[in-house]
Amino acid sequence: MAHIQLKNENLPGIIGLLDYSPETAKPLLDLANVLLADDNNSLSKGEREIIAASVSHKNNCHFCHSSHAAAAAAHFNEGADFLDEIKAGLPTFEVSDKLRALLHIAHLVQQTGKNVTAAAIEAAREKGATDKEIHDTVLIAAAFCMYNRYVDGLATWAPKENEAFMEMGKRLAEQGYVIEEPA
Amino acid sequence: MAHIQLKNENLPGIIGLLDYSPETAKPLLDLANVLLADDNNSLSKGEREIIAASVSHKNNCHFCHSSHAAAAAAHFNEGADFLDEIKAGLPTFEVSDKLRALLHIAHLVQQTGKNVTAAAIEAAREKGATDKEIHDTVLIAAAFCMYNRYVDGLATWAPKENEAFMEMGKRLAEQGYVIEEPA
Repeated sequence: MAHIQLKNENLPGIIGLLDYSPETAKPLLDLANVLLADDNNSLSKGEREIIAASVSHKNNCHFCHSSHAAAAAAHFNEGADFLDEIKAGLPTFEVSDKLRALLHIAHLVQQTGKNVTAAAIEAAREKGATDKEIHDTVLIAAAFCMYNRYVDGLATWAPKENEAFMEMGKRLAEQGYVIEEPA
Repeated sequence: MAHIQLKNENLPGIIGLLDYSPETAKPLLDLANVLLADDNNSLSKGEREIIAASVSHKNNCHFCHSSHAAAAAAHFNEGADFLDEIKAGLPTFEVSDKLRALLHIAHLVQQTGKNVTAAAIEAAREKGATDKEIHDTVLIAAAFCMYNRYVDGLATWAPKENEAFMEMGKRLAEQGYVIEEPA
């Protein structure tokens, strides 16, 4: 049971909250859309979803980790095991040195903004990261520190199993972040 | 020096970042506007700015604490000392029991979403907080965990002194969160 009375208790995670509060849903979805689903970005959508999912996992937010890892899986044509692969720090999936360096920055942001060091920024630059990519990485990580706290701070429910998120991930990967139409 | 090359290095805190990235500035400002400056809310604008400033202080974000505490000061017709009053946990300013209980929830969200307990929610309800007020408190606290990390994760600069923020606070209190026009 969520901490507040939602309009539709069947909607999991942030979906029930977006439905509860349409006036805040609009900017929250617009932000996710420009950060994760905009075509005009030198980081691929899959790479950006990995950053979102990995930060969500560090924040222990099951719904956000699973849904965004499932979106990443859809972008990379991976299966439900990919959710555990992200949890484990991508030990087997081929990740560019640049994305590894950006993920390190994202994990520092997850702790607190002041933990981002000039050395971590320089290491990402050495692997080819641009200012825009560093900016977007910091903002994606920061934004998921918001979404994760919103979802867990109001005690929303979420399905347990990886497989339950795969259809949602596919839809997010294909359609981006748009208001859910009532079924 | 910020970690990335801004277009205008003279703009402090988030203002330089909003100027750097207009496509993310729009939803970030829209979100701040609906959370903090919307007239249609049973929490006053000053109360909501106190929540924003207090969470920013817990996150050790000088720019966000000072600018939002200055906005709160403007709403309550207080002076520059009000920034320190918020840092100290409002020992002398008259605060309703409801706002104290909501601030407690906000501070739990600042730690991590999962720290919000049913007991903290129940305590706020007993002091008269509505579901909408609890929702907005959680989302304001969560949103400032984003803004704070964005501002500090990219190492933006900010003026030191309380007094330097008073004009900005007055403008935010009067105009809300809108794109800054070039001076």
